[in-house]
Amino acid sequence: MRMALPPSPLALPLPEMPAIAGVEIASVAAGIRYKTREDVTVFRFAPGTTAAGVFTRNLCPGAPVDWCRAALPGGKARALVVTAGNSNVFTGKAGRETCERTAREMAGLLGCRPKEVFLASTGVIGEKLPTEVLLAALPGAVEKLETDGWDGAARAIMTTDTFAKGAVRKARIGDGEVTICGIAKGSGMIAPDMATMLSFLATDAKIPAPVLQALLKRGVDKSFNCVTVDSDTSTSDTVMLFATGQARHPRVAADAKPSSLKDFARALDEVLHELALMVARDGEGAQKLITVNVTGAVSARSAHRVAMCIANSPLVKTAIAGEDANWGRIVMAVGKAGEPADRDLLSVAVGGTWMAREGEVVPGYDETPVVAHMKGREVEITVDLGLGRGAATVWTCDLTHGYIDINGSYRS
Amino acid sequence: MRMALPPSPLALPLPEMPAIAGVEIASVAAGIRYKTREDVTVFRFAPGTTAAGVFTRNLCPGAPVDWCRAALPGGKARALVVTAGNSNVFTGKAGRETCERTAREMAGLLGCRPKEVFLASTGVIGEKLPTEVLLAALPGAVEKLETDGWDGAARAIMTTDTFAKGAVRKARIGDGEVTICGIAKGSGMIAPDMATMLSFLATDAKIPAPVLQALLKRGVDKSFNCVTVDSDTSTSDTVMLFATGQARHPRVAADAKPSSLKDFARALDEVLHELALMVARDGEGAQKLITVNVTGAVSARSAHRVAMCIANSPLVKTAIAGEDANWGRIVMAVGKAGEPADRDLLSVAVGGTWMAREGEVVPGYDETPVVAHMKGREVEITVDLGLGRGAATVWTCDLTHGYIDINGSYRS
Repeated sequence: MRMALPPSPLALPLPEMPAIAGVEIASVAAGIRYKTREDVTVFRFAPGTTAAGVFTRNLCPGAPVDWCRAALPGGKARALVVTAGNSNVFTGKAGRETCERTAREMAGLLGCRPKEVFLASTGVIGEKLPTEVLLAALPGAVEKLETDGWDGAARAIMTTDTFAKGAVRKARIGDGEVTICGIAKGSGMIAPDMATMLSFLATDAKIPAPVLQALLKRGVDKSFNCVTVDSDTSTSDTVMLFATGQARHPRVAADAKPSSLKDFARALDEVLHELALMVARDGEGAQKLITVNVTGAVSARSAHRVAMCIANSPLVKTAIAGEDANWGRIVMAVGKAGEPADRDLLSVAVGGTWMAREGEVVPGYDETPVVAHMKGREVEITVDLGLGRGAATVWTCDLTHGYIDINGSYRS
Repeated sequence: MRMALPPSPLALPLPEMPAIAGVEIASVAAGIRYKTREDVTVFRFAPGTTAAGVFTRNLCPGAPVDWCRAALPGGKARALVVTAGNSNVFTGKAGRETCERTAREMAGLLGCRPKEVFLASTGVIGEKLPTEVLLAALPGAVEKLETDGWDGAARAIMTTDTFAKGAVRKARIGDGEVTICGIAKGSGMIAPDMATMLSFLATDAKIPAPVLQALLKRGVDKSFNCVTVDSDTSTSDTVMLFATGQARHPRVAADAKPSSLKDFARALDEVLHELALMVARDGEGAQKLITVNVTGAVSARSAHRVAMCIANSPLVKTAIAGEDANWGRIVMAVGKAGEPADRDLLSVAVGGTWMAREGEVVPGYDETPVVAHMKGREVEITVDLGLGRGAATVWTCDLTHGYIDINGSYRS
């Protein structure tokens, strides 16, 4: 296994993570793959906790994703078990059995139904997860459960992430105050694995599962689904939100519109946004965080596609790594998106300086402020398509030698 | 400007390129960007020459691509002018004027119509092509025209290609013999430019333009459109085929089916295939040529999409650079293609050795032959989806530090 990497130069510190009423967390060292660190994390949720989840669109998902998808319609959660070091992906029938046995064991320990236990795993693909090792660790984890376990969990779910990722917000629902805590891992990898993104959020708010699901879906679309490191989509990507209902606030109806939960939605979006950007900040080999804004598209959907095409272009990402404000490559990426675009209406700005307007270099264009912007840790690209009012923003990181080092070294 | 790179380890020698009756070629040093080498190539075609062309799908194409698209419906060609060092892309009205003036000047020199003059340029984007410099070079080029100019042209159209690319085949049409010569450039780049692929073929066969176009389109779909270096699509990609009609063979009707020209189509496909693979062999930073076969898809189109998704995956390409037969990443790439696939029917082979069958590691899988295969210069991946009879093959190269070096260095 590879040596730990130094923290990303874009790393942010883990904020103080408060306890969430109704959530207990424990992380233990089970030795599934890593031998010297905590690698299994267990969450226990109070009875009545509702759950929402958004999962990878990859059509070859891991067994834990299948499990969660099947359990989610129940809308109730009592536990979450996360393992690091083995993804339980492409493991056939054995993988399904591991999921069933883990959920059953956990349900037995907590006195709940297996379908109230959610599962997530990341790490090596195609190797059977040592089920007995995992099961043996669960009773000890349950004994260790404490309300103050977010920090440990943020670290224990990491694979080769270079820093632990967490975010916290408070929100009001009517005259009541609630808290949302979230952790994420992403962009580290263990050969022969891929970067996988996991994120788990909990709140003490009391929100019916369908409302929670709508809020989470909307928030993920604006955050995690707007972040790309290398265009590759993991088989295990999972974002889950649990609401314990322990806070006091006016009742939220099962058919409540997201608009009636404006402040909660704002806080949730902020947590998701912060966590998603942390994943980009920990992108393999990342030296720069890149924001891509697209305006003037025929629709928001079209703008998003163009922005993702720019953010996924290896030529754009290597240019930024080289601190080269190469707008020719940006134009190329716009054109290859296949979305409505007119070369002669296109404008490109870097760091707020317009380099090209309506298909031509800006007359008398002075490179100086752009060159200075490119040397920074955060680079902003704006493309105006000049066609309509559709706009979108996505985030990525540059493509550097570090990416090749991390992903191109033979597994040992 | 950057120092010349050493030849790709996957380079092939330029074959002996015979004269094609009705084709004269000259390359001259105009000094458009490069100061010490030939950078303008002129082809003169005999009266009666028909033309076919396939161009980039990028929606922000260069001015020369617009010019060729507009001229092609005429179906007749008397000249081709290729410049290296400036792509005349994103140059607005000035770019269109350069094209018009170049075609007019060349038409005047050769006594033909401007619409019989085709144009192609690659190199820096967004800088005006110095039209006067180009026009001043044309009379000298016309004086230098000779039937033996393929070698020089193969070199003069290069930008940062590391080797000159050419291919030759003979074919029979009825009882007559014809020759097809082709050259290509691709995958080199000049900061701040992108890898652009150009390819020009000529034959002494007499083939009506619509038939020629159908043959070329079919051939390009199976060759250049099956090659990817980094998923980025240039704004200038151009493949053109010229038929001078100087050879003697039975008449080809304007509505002839490709099947009536089987041997010609075979030879054309071979030339296109060889040239396309040379582009992958010269992929920026390439150390290994990768063949991706997909079988068992629901359709050929679906197989092609899955194969391209594997070939474009940075995680697959870096794994191969690291000589790691990482089938987990291959499964991931299959899943993210969004095409019909069932994880539990999926099989993966590398170098002919099946590593995974029907969603699980092959019992007793012995890595030895796979490890040996991965150390070679040519790596073959086969994925069977187990769903239908759709099959496709695409080619790419690995993603190495060389790619980052070439594309991530600040333009000087």
